[in-house]
Amino acid sequence: MSEVLRLGIAGLGTVGVGVVEIVQKHGALLKRRTGCEVAVSCVSARDSSRDRGVDLSGYGWVDDPVTMAERDDVDVVVELIGGSEGIAYDLVKTALSNGKSVVTANKALMAHHGAELAELAEANGVGLSYEAAVAGGIPIIKAMRESLMGNEIAALYGILNGTSNYILSEMRTGGRGFADVLKDAQAKGYAEADPAFDINGTDAGHKLTLLAAIAFGVKPNFDAVELNGIEHLLLEDIQFAEELGYRIKLLGITQKIDGAVVQSVEPCLVPRSSPLWAIEDVYNAVYVDCDAVETPFFSGRGAGRMPTASSVMGDIVDLARGIRVPVFGMSSMHLLDAVHAPMDRVKSRFYLRLNVVDEPGVMASITAVLRDFGISIESMVQRGRAPGEAVHVVLKTHGALTGDMRTAVEQIGALDVSVEKPCLIRIEDDL
Amino acid sequence: MSEVLRLGIAGLGTVGVGVVEIVQKHGALLKRRTGCEVAVSCVSARDSSRDRGVDLSGYGWVDDPVTMAERDDVDVVVELIGGSEGIAYDLVKTALSNGKSVVTANKALMAHHGAELAELAEANGVGLSYEAAVAGGIPIIKAMRESLMGNEIAALYGILNGTSNYILSEMRTGGRGFADVLKDAQAKGYAEADPAFDINGTDAGHKLTLLAAIAFGVKPNFDAVELNGIEHLLLEDIQFAEELGYRIKLLGITQKIDGAVVQSVEPCLVPRSSPLWAIEDVYNAVYVDCDAVETPFFSGRGAGRMPTASSVMGDIVDLARGIRVPVFGMSSMHLLDAVHAPMDRVKSRFYLRLNVVDEPGVMASITAVLRDFGISIESMVQRGRAPGEAVHVVLKTHGALTGDMRTAVEQIGALDVSVEKPCLIRIEDDL
Repeated sequence: MSEVLRLGIAGLGTVGVGVVEIVQKHGALLKRRTGCEVAVSCVSARDSSRDRGVDLSGYGWVDDPVTMAERDDVDVVVELIGGSEGIAYDLVKTALSNGKSVVTANKALMAHHGAELAELAEANGVGLSYEAAVAGGIPIIKAMRESLMGNEIAALYGILNGTSNYILSEMRTGGRGFADVLKDAQAKGYAEADPAFDINGTDAGHKLTLLAAIAFGVKPNFDAVELNGIEHLLLEDIQFAEELGYRIKLLGITQKIDGAVVQSVEPCLVPRSSPLWAIEDVYNAVYVDCDAVETPFFSGRGAGRMPTASSVMGDIVDLARGIRVPVFGMSSMHLLDAVHAPMDRVKSRFYLRLNVVDEPGVMASITAVLRDFGISIESMVQRGRAPGEAVHVVLKTHGALTGDMRTAVEQIGALDVSVEKPCLIRIEDDL
Repeated sequence: MSEVLRLGIAGLGTVGVGVVEIVQKHGALLKRRTGCEVAVSCVSARDSSRDRGVDLSGYGWVDDPVTMAERDDVDVVVELIGGSEGIAYDLVKTALSNGKSVVTANKALMAHHGAELAELAEANGVGLSYEAAVAGGIPIIKAMRESLMGNEIAALYGILNGTSNYILSEMRTGGRGFADVLKDAQAKGYAEADPAFDINGTDAGHKLTLLAAIAFGVKPNFDAVELNGIEHLLLEDIQFAEELGYRIKLLGITQKIDGAVVQSVEPCLVPRSSPLWAIEDVYNAVYVDCDAVETPFFSGRGAGRMPTASSVMGDIVDLARGIRVPVFGMSSMHLLDAVHAPMDRVKSRFYLRLNVVDEPGVMASITAVLRDFGISIESMVQRGRAPGEAVHVVLKTHGALTGDMRTAVEQIGALDVSVEKPCLIRIEDDL
């Protein structure tokens, strides 16, 4: 262990500034805890003149962050630029190739290039850590790739995107529609100007990809994640769910079915008995289904300056202590190319909301389709509107294969009596 | 890193057998994950003839476990004997002195001798891990001594004893008294024949001592934990608490007040909004109050064969990967002798249940005492009994110093109108 660990911080957005703040505030504490001085050598960002509320005067300024990877005064590159390609990718690759460890918060980069970068880190005998890339301040990567390593993992469920969880919470508590709440979230800074990645499941999918890789010892494969967002949810869905004793959460789920890995992001009905039920606003949570420890549960702030910076610092502390952990929980040469299975083969109960004309025989046509697929109905609610108008019908089914359910719903949607695309949501009763 | 990590397992109770099971079941997986074969060299227990449901025939049998510490075929001693003194202490000390790493589930040993053993481990360049000693399967030690190291910690709250949490849950859901539920818990194996350590707070106190040491960088000091158990709680207290919107949980709490460390185990009223509220039965949970990551929360099985064995395996995986972490989150030479403060200086709201005679002027005498200590009442419930009988009066106070509150309650208990010792419980509203 050397006596000083010198950081190059690339990216001075909210998280980068948080990391600088912790290093400045807790320098003495970090030294007691690691036996090593943690120091910032240089920083990099697009605009050198902007006041970021922290004193950067003691640090070198680097215009081209990729050059950090070549500096003699940098032991660890802290990559907080973001994006799966371009500068972030070049910087991390160059740093690892040059024998510098990398700490990153970049989920997109790791989800798309994780396998290649893990190999590169190993070949060069350096660390590559990304605690901050998944679930903000929750130390789930360390738990997964270290603490739970004595377990075979069957499944993992996570609320992994704070923005969509905030939107769903607000819709429920405020009784407001999706578009209305989204606009509000953007005004408050909880959602980006372009919120697509948050609300269509992409961001959660990046994170899920990394968790699945560790859980199952496979190369991260973002392309095999089925993405479903929350844009199509109505306030009514949230209210119907609540009447049935559930809340709707956008869950990242990975599980093994007959040896194949299934990865999905989708809204799910979560029962009151689940610890995920109470996770509201911008909080994240992860629930793991393990063979020995059963179902450990982790929750905390899923985003924000200091929580995310805390995760970056946890990775830095490891490096300051001379600790390196296999990037995805095992050496790259042992990571398998996963066999992926589609969602079709997942069995669960479902919530189905239809908007249909209010006339005799409608329910007969709908239930006939379900019967043809062997899908049985557990309960049904019909919400009356004005006479002659279309009505919402909500069905809760017994267990059915997702593939069957989806085909049935397509057929129901094509019936003349359907006035709107049906909304199908998985019910996750076993959480 | 060597190619095989050889374990000597001392103690073949429920956890020891769980560890053997995991090593046998997941041998190949552990090798993929650590790059190292994890093998059992020898085992030790009191009775070599007993059938424990696992095949031990391939392992050496050791009669005197302390001799494990001297065997050439043992790299890591897994101490699962228990007890703060005697064989467990001798074994761990000898193993560390002989340059063998130790993994233990022994909270009493670590709480009483942790500082000495940590020094010994460091002096000999070996690891000393105890994830399984605290909160069963929850990886809280790793989170505390690694992930959260970039944070200054203000306080930590834990449900750390599964037996007492089970008893409190059962009293509430079954509407039964303490003694009745305890007898039942003993029959089910959830409570020991001698349940004293579980119900009087000692066991939770051992665990809290270790968490406090890591949180504040101090030498573990069990003697400075104020212990309060659950034996004196009535079913009525649980019901009154529920009426007020709370559940009673036995919490281990450590916090800093003016630089001094306060450590306590005591029943507390936990509000519905707290994640601790929903932790029932034998589950454990830990809530940490940090300056950067804010309030991460961890829950899971607090005991049981496989959950605890999972934690032991997590520590073994670290060692198989060549990872050693400072025993209490920093080198022993940096651990401070904590300045401890008594509970007296902790301010909070309180639940106070009195049993008083039902006659004019009683409330005037009681409230006069509270007034003299500057304690103001937020709400009051009186539960009527038959005329002329003693009545339960429950008060909820505004914030008051524990010391003042306790003195006031002593005075109230000494009043002629009191027919029973009052029951005072802290309300932890900020969780």
